[in-house]
Formats: sequence, structure tokens, C-alpha cells
Amino acid sequence: MKNAADVAIVGYGISKFNRDGCLNPVYELAVQSVVDMFNNMMMMVELDARTVKDRIDALITSTTDSSAYTASILADMLGIRARIVNRVESMCSSGSNALTAAYSYIASGLSDLALVVGFDSYNSGLLLEWDVARGDTRHPAHWAAVYAKRHMQEFGSTREQLAMVAVKNRRSAVANDKAYFYNAKVITVDDVLNSRPIVEPLRLYDCSIACNGAASILLARGDIAKGICKEPVWIKGVGSSSIGASINSIDLTRMHATVDAARQAYDMSNVKPEMVDVAQIHDSFTILEILAYEDLGFVSKGKGGYAVEGKISIPAVNTDGGILGRGHSSGATGVAQIAEVVSQLMHRAGSRQVKDCSIGLVHNMAAAGTHASVVILENK
Amino acid sequence: MKNAADVAIVGYGISKFNRDGCLNPVYELAVQSVVDMFNNMMMMVELDARTVKDRIDALITSTTDSSAYTASILADMLGIRARIVNRVESMCSSGSNALTAAYSYIASGLSDLALVVGFDSYNSGLLLEWDVARGDTRHPAHWAAVYAKRHMQEFGSTREQLAMVAVKNRRSAVANDKAYFYNAKVITVDDVLNSRPIVEPLRLYDCSIACNGAASILLARGDIAKGICKEPVWIKGVGSSSIGASINSIDLTRMHATVDAARQAYDMSNVKPEMVDVAQIHDSFTILEILAYEDLGFVSKGKGGYAVEGKISIPAVNTDGGILGRGHSSGATGVAQIAEVVSQLMHRAGSRQVKDCSIGLVHNMAAAGTHASVVILENK
Repeated sequence: MKNAADVAIVGYGISKFNRDGCLNPVYELAVQSVVDMFNNMMMMVELDARTVKDRIDALITSTTDSSAYTASILADMLGIRARIVNRVESMCSSGSNALTAAYSYIASGLSDLALVVGFDSYNSGLLLEWDVARGDTRHPAHWAAVYAKRHMQEFGSTREQLAMVAVKNRRSAVANDKAYFYNAKVITVDDVLNSRPIVEPLRLYDCSIACNGAASILLARGDIAKGICKEPVWIKGVGSSSIGASINSIDLTRMHATVDAARQAYDMSNVKPEMVDVAQIHDSFTILEILAYEDLGFVSKGKGGYAVEGKISIPAVNTDGGILGRGHSSGATGVAQIAEVVSQLMHRAGSRQVKDCSIGLVHNMAAAGTHASVVILENK
Repeated sequence: MKNAADVAIVGYGISKFNRDGCLNPVYELAVQSVVDMFNNMMMMVELDARTVKDRIDALITSTTDSSAYTASILADMLGIRARIVNRVESMCSSGSNALTAAYSYIASGLSDLALVVGFDSYNSGLLLEWDVARGDTRHPAHWAAVYAKRHMQEFGSTREQLAMVAVKNRRSAVANDKAYFYNAKVITVDDVLNSRPIVEPLRLYDCSIACNGAASILLARGDIAKGICKEPVWIKGVGSSSIGASINSIDLTRMHATVDAARQAYDMSNVKPEMVDVAQIHDSFTILEILAYEDLGFVSKGKGGYAVEGKISIPAVNTDGGILGRGHSSGATGVAQIAEVVSQLMHRAGSRQVKDCSIGLVHNMAAAGTHASVVILENK
């Protein structure tokens, strides 16, 4: 794998995640996150937003929304007359795929400044035609439950350990004013264990909630990045993998696409798991965060539960509340994850700032873990 | 604009374009075009399709279909375990955008061998939310009619000249066994002029028909291309532009996004319009082919009608019947255009082969010309 080209993230923005009625996610959410991004950027440096906007030559939307042409519509609304304008879609991992696309447009010389905007409304739909082949286990909670059962059987992971993931991520979300669970009540392990059963062993609080949401990031060619942003965050590694459900199910103790994607991203960046300071992990269900600790190499296989208990040291994970706390908005999720890690590496994360962090990781998945992306970011 | 990286097209395939009932375009059409691609490739060289398939590390779908996750579903169906797997969508110009994405993945070092598959069913939908803003002129025929009227007023173009585009492209389609109008009757200028009025001055035969269809192309890094294909076709220039409907409408005598995209592609490739031997032009309405002659620089502004009459020499255009003759299938259209030019430049176009061609151009548009892409290909 070739080393990463000189591409940085110079801006990030995020809308409020909620379940309010949403007429149109492009009009109501996407634009919000872009405005938030420019506000954040202007707080960083003396910057004329219009000057930056006029230099944007690629606009990639990330959404599972059924309406077409969203990228051109958004470009028109924002007054951006860009060269490369299209949508990237890969269900819940659309966001990280859009980042990789923008990275490639810059690295290949076709773009200098690329805006990625992820958005979806809560009713964009979670069931896929693909799911039909899986019969009664179509809802995402079913496959997550299968992974949870297998992990408990094989490694002795406990219901309490799963619950601790939900407790941790809710606590972070309560303090994040963009999160769905902002200002909600903090929950306990007992609250999780006593919440409504969904698919055994998973309970209501083990599951994320589908939300409206949007997030934006701005990527720049290295030499331009330094002129726009005091503390650009560099894209050091991108890994991605798609794997059929049949292959994926042979060994239910690991997320194979995640393992593949992580290996690629680590190789490309020369970063090792123990060097990561802060990570956003695709925790649409509690078990997935535990599996990811292992499959990203933060702990050895089977030890994810111990990491939740604090018995093994791992990076700061899901500092914004994760998918469980911030809410899940398919096309926005991956972009929001990147925005959070970028804010951490720029040391602009406020009350949830991780001290002295310099290397961050984003893990974004789709459809029963059959697709996964891993992005490694660094602030120098 | 940086010169093009060393990226080639090494395979192409296309399904039959029709309006039969279509249960699911992924299952019924996309796979057909990939199989056709491998058949074509195996006719070219002694090739083990499985060996090539196993090396594919990127799969990009191009479709406006409302179902999500089509790229991963298709990868699973084809037994392709790729790294980069997602959909690119930009309405009717999705295909050229998917090509540009694949080009970038290879040029940036993230992919060696990238498969692009475009497909749509005839009922994928032609109206956009964006169209709502345009009130009564929502159907594509309305804006095409506005352009036609303006061109006739400003430059004296005639109804007969428009009709001659339809006649020419129908003639090519009748001989193309993949085209919707294969084996259909050849039409005359009078047939076009006497066909049902749609929006004055456009008649039924001035308008393309929405179809089911799929097309595939395989892109490779330069050094790999030479090992897979005797006659790789090189991507020399890619240009793309998105422009708001409001700006686009200020001057109705030209397609502004097309002018932008063409300039980029010519600059990048060092090709001049007069060097182009064969072109696929986005002729969803007859007037658009005439406008494109001008906006691509084949003739000066206002002279497009003379080119149709054969009074000015231009490249061979829409050799497969174009959109008017092959049929329009949004996500497939751009990929099918590229496949046709590639087959010409590989000198494998059979009865419709353009002699001694070495430079080809593809022009693909969307939504009232608010987005356009131009790709320049060369066989050496």
C-alpha cells in the first residue's frame, strides 16, 4: 500500500441530531452542517468564508436518501460551482466512503479543496433488498444479537460488559449539545439490563436510534491546507473492505471487513493500534464496540469485555457519545465520526477534549459488518 | 490541470437496452453487463476471467435506483471481494462521474483494477425534487424545448436539422443489437416532423426513451493494463462541472457546464476538438446534440445545424445510436457511452467501426445541463 498523499482536513461541522419531523434532509440538515463548519473555521483563523467557498472544487454528498441529484442541488443552494459534484452511497458506511473519494480526488490531482456533506433523515430506511435473503433476521438487531451470543459463548463476555458500553456512551452524549441524548438522563448498568428486550441478549439500550442528522468536513491539498487552517488534521491512512454476508458469517467471533480495513489503514499510515489516542467506533449496538476493540487491535481477540471494564487500557472511544449516544443517521454517521476525531485532534473538543491526543482513528461499518472502513488521522 | 495519470480501460460490456418488466436492475441487468464484459475480454486475449476478477479491488456502481447498498450487493453476487465498494450518483451523469471516481482511486494509489457498473430500470424516475422549483417546466422535454426555440431564433436552426439528428441516430441504432431500436424501422425527416408534438418545437422522435439497461467498464493501472489487454484505451482527460439552474439559464444559447467540462478535459489531455475521431454525445433530445457540437468545439457557436447537414466536418457521433437510439437508462447511460467509444478505439465495433480512429470523446449530462462531464480517451 502506497503511503498517503498530502491531504488534510481543514474544517468540520455538525448539525443537531434529532427525530423531529424533517421535510427534506438536504434543505433542513445538510446546509446546517455546512454553516456550522464555516462558523468553526472562522473561529480558528481570520478567514473569509466566501473566499474559501469559492475555492471548493469538489462537493460529495453522503446519503442513503432515495432522492437523486442531492450533490448538485446542495451545490446550487450553497452557491458552490464545483468541478466534481456527486453522491457516494454505501449505506451506513457512506460517510467514510465519501471521505475516501474526496481524498482520492485530491490525491489524483483532480481537486484542491473538497467538501463532504453527510445527511439522512431518521426514516431513510434501515431495511435493504439485500436483507430479504436473510429471512427472519432482517433487522440489524438480529445479526448484532448473533454476534453478541457468539462472543459470550466463546469468550465469556457478559451482559454487564455490553451494558457498560451503553452507559459510557450515554454519559458522553449527555454532555454533547449536538447529540440526540444531550441533556438526557445518565443511565446505569441496571437501567440497560432492565430495559425492554429486543433480541436476546440485546435490550433497548444496547441499540442505537435512527436520527435526522448531518455533518460536513472540508479536505484540502496539503499546501492549501496550511493557508486555510492553523491546525490541519492529516489523512494518514484509509482502509476499506467489502465482504459477502456468507463469508462474513463463517466465523462469528470477528468482523472480517473491519480486520481487513484496519490492516490497510495501519499499513498505509505506519501507525500501530497502541499509538491511537482517540477513536470513533461504529457502535450501532453495544456488542459492536467490544468486537471493534479486538478487530482494530486495541486488545487481543476475546478481551474486548475487559477493556470496557477498564482492566485493559485502550484509546478514548466515542467521545461524542458514539452512535448509541449521538444517534445514527446513515449517511451522516461516518462524517460525524470524522468530525469528532478532527475536533479532538485540533484540540477544539471543549469539555470532552482528550488531552495530548495526536493520532485518531475512525471505524465506520455497514450492513451486518459486510462493509467497513478505517481512517487514521494525525495532527502533524 | 495536472496531466492524466497512467490509467487505462481494459474491458467493456453492455446489456440489451429494453423496456421489459424488470424486477431488480442489480440482479437482472448489472450482472448481464459484467458477464458481457468478461466475454469481450476473453475474445481479445487468452484470459482467465477468474484471475482478473480476483484482482478487482474497487467496484463502483452508477445508478439512480432508490435501493441502497447496490455496490456491495453486486460485489457479493459476483464473488468480488474488493477494497473500495460504493455507489456514485449524479442523475443522468452518474456514469461519467463513476468513471472519474474510478480513475481517481487508481491515480491516487488506492486501487489497481476498478470495475464500474452502471444500471437503471426504465421506471427509475425522471422527475427530481429539484424540478419542483421549476414549476410547470418540470419534465426534461420542457427545458430542451426552451433551448431548441432559442437556438432557432438566434441562429436560424431549423426543425429539419433537429429531425436529421433523430434520423441519423435511429439509423445507427437499428444496426446495434444492444440498442432499444435494434431492428426497428429506419425513420425519415418527415417521420420526425409528423410525429406527435411533445413540447413545441420538439416532437416524439426528438425525445429519447427511458429504458432498462446496464453497462460495465474495467479500469486498470497502466502497468497492469498492458498485461490484461492487448489494446488498452487510455484516459487522457476528464472534465466535469456543476452549475446552478439559475446561472445556466442566463444564456440559453449554450450549455455552460458542457463548455467548462470540455475545457478541462481538453487542457488535461492536450487534445484539441479537431483531433477527436469519434464521440458519444448526450443526445437525450435532438437539440442537445446540435448544442454539444458547438459547446465541445467541433463547430463554432450557432453552426451546429450545418454540421448535422454535413456542411461542416465533425467526428463520427453516436455510432451506437446515442441516447435517442440506444435508449436512456440514467445510471447506465454514461457507462454505455464510454463502452461504445472504447469498443471503437479498440477497433472491435464490428459493422459500426469508425476507420482509423485513435481519439475518442464522451459527453454526459444531467438535469437540464446543470451538470456535465467530458472524458477524452486515446488508444495509444
